[in-house]
Amino acid sequence: MEKHDWDNVFNFAKVLVLDAGDQIRLSFKQKLIIDFKENASDLVTNMDKQIEKFFIQKINEKYPSHHILGEEGYGEELTSLDGIVWIIDPIDGTMNFVHMQRHFAISVGIYHNGEGVIGFIYDVVADDLYYAVKGGGAFVNGEALPPLKSTEIGKAVIGINAAWGIENKRIDSSITSALIRDVRGTRSFGSATLEMAYIASGKIDGYLSMRLAPWDYAAGKILIEELGGKISSVSGEPLQLLTKQTPVFAAKPGLHEYILENYFKK
Amino acid sequence: MEKHDWDNVFNFAKVLVLDAGDQIRLSFKQKLIIDFKENASDLVTNMDKQIEKFFIQKINEKYPSHHILGEEGYGEELTSLDGIVWIIDPIDGTMNFVHMQRHFAISVGIYHNGEGVIGFIYDVVADDLYYAVKGGGAFVNGEALPPLKSTEIGKAVIGINAAWGIENKRIDSSITSALIRDVRGTRSFGSATLEMAYIASGKIDGYLSMRLAPWDYAAGKILIEELGGKISSVSGEPLQLLTKQTPVFAAKPGLHEYILENYFKK
Repeated sequence: MEKHDWDNVFNFAKVLVLDAGDQIRLSFKQKLIIDFKENASDLVTNMDKQIEKFFIQKINEKYPSHHILGEEGYGEELTSLDGIVWIIDPIDGTMNFVHMQRHFAISVGIYHNGEGVIGFIYDVVADDLYYAVKGGGAFVNGEALPPLKSTEIGKAVIGINAAWGIENKRIDSSITSALIRDVRGTRSFGSATLEMAYIASGKIDGYLSMRLAPWDYAAGKILIEELGGKISSVSGEPLQLLTKQTPVFAAKPGLHEYILENYFKK
Repeated sequence: MEKHDWDNVFNFAKVLVLDAGDQIRLSFKQKLIIDFKENASDLVTNMDKQIEKFFIQKINEKYPSHHILGEEGYGEELTSLDGIVWIIDPIDGTMNFVHMQRHFAISVGIYHNGEGVIGFIYDVVADDLYYAVKGGGAFVNGEALPPLKSTEIGKAVIGINAAWGIENKRIDSSITSALIRDVRGTRSFGSATLEMAYIASGKIDGYLSMRLAPWDYAAGKILIEELGGKISSVSGEPLQLLTKQTPVFAAKPGLHEYILENYFKK
C-alpha cells in the first residue's frame, strides 16, 4: 500500500473509534445486560459485542480484503498475520466499564504482514485519544508525545495488579514482590491498554500482566515502540499476536532491560 | 451552630474547593518544583503547599474560631477535636499529581466536636465534586448518591495496593493475599480519598490501606458513613482523627463486617 492509502486507513479508523466511543457514552443511559464469560472476573456486556460487530461491519464494507481479530470472537479465526489485520478490543477493562463506568478504553491496532502500522487507544470517559503511526510519531489528542527516556527503578511507578504479587500460578511471586518493593510505587487501573497508553504518555513507567491476549496489547505495542519504549514477554521474547494468554512486560527503554535482567531473568 | 450557619460553611467550603481546583489546573502549565519529604515515595510539590496555605488564609479570615489540621503542617498542632475543625489534604495522591497529572483529589472534612458534618472530595481533572452533609445526603456533581448496599465478596472490587499483599511490616500478608485471591478484582488508583469517593459512588466496593493520616480519610469517612458504608481500623476500631499512620478499611455495609470477621479478626 502507498502512504496515501495508509492515510485513508488511519482517517477511517479514527472515525470508527470516535463513533464507537459515542455509542458507549450513550449506553450509560441504558441498563446494561451482563453475561458471564468463562470466569466471573471476565465480564462481558452487550456493549462489547455491539461495538465489535460495529467495527467488523464497517471494516468489511470499506476494506473487504482486511482481516479482523477481535476479543469477542466475531472476527476471524486467524492462523496467519499475512496482509492487513485489525486487532480490536472493543472495551478493554470490561470490569471497570461495568463497575465504574470509567477507566476502560477502545483498543485498535492495525498490522501489515505482522508489523504494527497504526494504533489507537481511546479512553472514552476522559475523552483522551492516543494514537501512533509507525515512523510518524505518537500523539494524545493531537499533541505529539515526546520519546520515552529511561528512569531509575527507585523512581518508577509500575502498573501491576496485586494478584501478581501474591502466590499465583503464572509467576514466582518472589520475583514480583521484590519488584513491588523496589519501585517508587505501584498502581492498578484495571485496563491493560489504558496502562500502556499511560506508559506512552509518561504517566507511568512500566506495566506487567501475566495473562494478556493480542487485543489487549496490539495498539499499546505500536504506541510504546514508536516512542522508543519496549514491550516483550517476561523472558524478553517478542510478543505473539496470534497466541492468547501471554505474559507481557512493557516499560520505558533502559528500565525495561534493567528489570528483565535483574528480576525476571535472575 | 444553627442549620443556617452550617449552610454558610458548606457554601464557603465549596467555593474554596472549586477555587483550589482551578489553581491546580492552572499550575499544569507551569513547571512544578518537587521537594522530597521523609521518603522518596512521599512527594510534595509547591502546589500542595500553596493550596494548603490558601485554605488556611481564607478560613482564618472568615472563621477565626475554626481550627485547621492540614497535611503540609501549615495548620495547627491539634490535641483536641473540640469546636469546629477543618481537616484538609490539599492534594491527596501527590505521586499521581507529579507523575500523571490526574487521579488526585482535594479532600476537606469539617468536624464539630469530633463528629463529621461536611465532606468534600474533588477529583480535579475529572471535574467530579463529591460531597456529603451529615443527615443531608451525599452527592456527586449535584446528583444524589443512593445508599450503599452490600455485595458478596466474590463480586467485590477492592482498592488495595500491591505493597499490602506482599510481606510487609504492617500486616500479615497471609490475610491480605487471601483477600486479594477471594475478591473479583483489585485496583490501586493511588489516592485514598479518591478511592473512598469511588466507594461512596458505588464504583468500587472496599478499600484497604495500612498507613493513612486523618487528612486522607476525614472527608471520605463522612461520605461513606452518610450512605451507610463502614470505615474503621482493620480490627474494627473507630478511626482516630488526631493520630497519624492508621490502618484503614472502608467498605459497603455487610461486606465490611464480613471481611473483618473472616479475614482480619481470624
